Amino acid sequence: MSSVGPVIFERHLFGPGPSNPYPEATDALSRPLLGHLDPEFLRIMDETCELLRQAWGTTNARTLPISATGSAGMEAAFVNTVHEGDVVVVGVNGLFGQRMCDVAARCGAEVVAVEHEWGTPVDVQRMLDAHPHPTMYAAVHAETSTGVRSDIAALGAAKGDALLVTDAVTSLAGIELRADDWGIDVGYAGTQKCLGVAPGLAPFTINDRAFARRVEKPRSWYLDLGLLGGYVGEASSRGATGGGRTYHHTAPVAMVVSLHAGLTRIVEEGLENVWARHEAVGKQLQDGLQSMGLELFAQEGSRLPELTTVKVPDGVDSAAVRGRLLERHGIEIGAGVGQYAATVWRIGLMGHNARPDAALLVLAALEEAIKA
Amino acid sequence: MSSVGPVIFERHLFGPGPSNPYPEATDALSRPLLGHLDPEFLRIMDETCELLRQAWGTTNARTLPISATGSAGMEAAFVNTVHEGDVVVVGVNGLFGQRMCDVAARCGAEVVAVEHEWGTPVDVQRMLDAHPHPTMYAAVHAETSTGVRSDIAALGAAKGDALLVTDAVTSLAGIELRADDWGIDVGYAGTQKCLGVAPGLAPFTINDRAFARRVEKPRSWYLDLGLLGGYVGEASSRGATGGGRTYHHTAPVAMVVSLHAGLTRIVEEGLENVWARHEAVGKQLQDGLQSMGLELFAQEGSRLPELTTVKVPDGVDSAAVRGRLLERHGIEIGAGVGQYAATVWRIGLMGHNARPDAALLVLAALEEAIKA
Repeated sequence: MSSVGPVIFERHLFGPGPSNPYPEATDALSRPLLGHLDPEFLRIMDETCELLRQAWGTTNARTLPISATGSAGMEAAFVNTVHEGDVVVVGVNGLFGQRMCDVAARCGAEVVAVEHEWGTPVDVQRMLDAHPHPTMYAAVHAETSTGVRSDIAALGAAKGDALLVTDAVTSLAGIELRADDWGIDVGYAGTQKCLGVAPGLAPFTINDRAFARRVEKPRSWYLDLGLLGGYVGEASSRGATGGGRTYHHTAPVAMVVSLHAGLTRIVEEGLENVWARHEAVGKQLQDGLQSMGLELFAQEGSRLPELTTVKVPDGVDSAAVRGRLLERHGIEIGAGVGQYAATVWRIGLMGHNARPDAALLVLAALEEAIKA
Repeated sequence: MSSVGPVIFERHLFGPGPSNPYPEATDALSRPLLGHLDPEFLRIMDETCELLRQAWGTTNARTLPISATGSAGMEAAFVNTVHEGDVVVVGVNGLFGQRMCDVAARCGAEVVAVEHEWGTPVDVQRMLDAHPHPTMYAAVHAETSTGVRSDIAALGAAKGDALLVTDAVTSLAGIELRADDWGIDVGYAGTQKCLGVAPGLAPFTINDRAFARRVEKPRSWYLDLGLLGGYVGEASSRGATGGGRTYHHTAPVAMVVSLHAGLTRIVEEGLENVWARHEAVGKQLQDGLQSMGLELFAQEGSRLPELTTVKVPDGVDSAAVRGRLLERHGIEIGAGVGQYAATVWRIGLMGHNARPDAALLVLAALEEAIKA
């Protein structure tokens, strides 16, 4: 086996994620490994947290890459902040809103799910009307299952004393996101979408207000933010860190170094330039799809540029088209989710893939594949 | 910044982990990324689970790499199997036994901690005498904090109707481990020790007996084994997978591909040959340390070959010696843990580092560094 080596598959990852990483992020993965307490690694971890603050638009001290995938970020958000019986109002306009309900309920929340038609954004007034005094509001900024953007700023402005938890898995470093200005108290994301890094970490941020209301000893040891503060060397951490680190768990060193490289790439380009690039390429794709006579799924005015949902034309076999794209050109696009599994495609142009040539390629290949 | 590129640090990772990965594992990290539902990735995931079965010595269908570090494997073990009020007898002979107590208690267990002097193995008779009818026994096979091996086979033979949870973070693919023969019901490990892969995944196995007694809806959604069965395409999984996969979370693709490469390397060498290599190199190191007049910390007869603990000589500054090793030769060794932080060193020769030249190097460098 090793004498011939593995066959290398190259893919254009134009689905809902993972996307192809920035080359800098891939290169970083293969650097010689550092120890998790090595001074050089601690420097990289500190810089990573600082770069994440820039990406989130926050000054939160407690901003860090959690050592698991984006879904664990969701779990960290709720397990640290939901006390038994807390009322959590969740905006549900897709799969990840549904998941929030499940995760929050397991943490002991009384969940008030505000159901929306898939393809539409979260309605802030309906969220406010759902309960007179919730402990928390939770909503997804960019619904990966439907390609819809919701107005988190409006929800943050109206939240009152409640906390606001935001899923930014598919929005961080792709579209405008300003955690502090918008009143986001707790946010989590993934690395494999617009950040342009392989999946495996959950960028996370929590402000002082939410941290002060946290569960002192959450059910999860691994995701306990009280312990994780020491892990990233947070100044205000409890415990005898002596200004240093408290050993919690072994950091996923290679992934953190890769995230650092991806974030560095983004900050060098300029975060607002990166947003503009996603915006322009998304418009190019969506205009092109409509020019081909295809109908977009997400409601106009709420369409994400980085993740486009499009209706499968009548009489076209969704899976067959996806199979042809993969086989002929190594192009991956996504199926729809739930009841839309066979009737919607999801096309992501995120991070390194948010480029005009990528949009051109997927448009041409899709047109070809639909013809069979 | 990017115009000059990052400074690359090369380290000999001779501490308690991470260790330097096998070259095959590092190369695999930088392959073009695959989608988490790509047929080629699903094939690699299936093979990885099968290779893990070989490493664990098990036929358990539910054997998989959990998408987080080894400590999350510990949490997965308890959160899925501990019902409120269950009696869990934990062998505590180091930091990771202590951690088991914390994690199990958060899951609702009534923990019976059987404390041992650090440096000694878990005493099976004391475990049996600790409670007349526990739900579960839990012990660490290879205590990373002390360098001690405990006799899991003896505990498994005596466990009666109770379940046996075993921490194999520092033993899997390093020393003899036979999950099925020894009566291990639930086991977890890490990738960054003897497996010779970067940190970031928790190889996990659970048998039918333990799975049948599991918590139907555990507090953790991310680590819910009922849901994770569909994720790895387990045949007996619940849910409408139609023989395929149920989307749970995005697999950390690059890390799984790297683990696959590391495991392939190990199986090609032969698992028992790999154990023998760790055994021989550990003896070389321990003999050499004693020849230098140093005293080993772990009790004779229970010393791990892959992780050696040695007492810091009187009058020698532990941290200064470690600093000199790092600065002069890029060699990392570990400090002790807890009350032994300044009086014990931990030297790991694991995975790719379980080589005679690595032992020779660390012995020569340590002798030099102690002289100042």
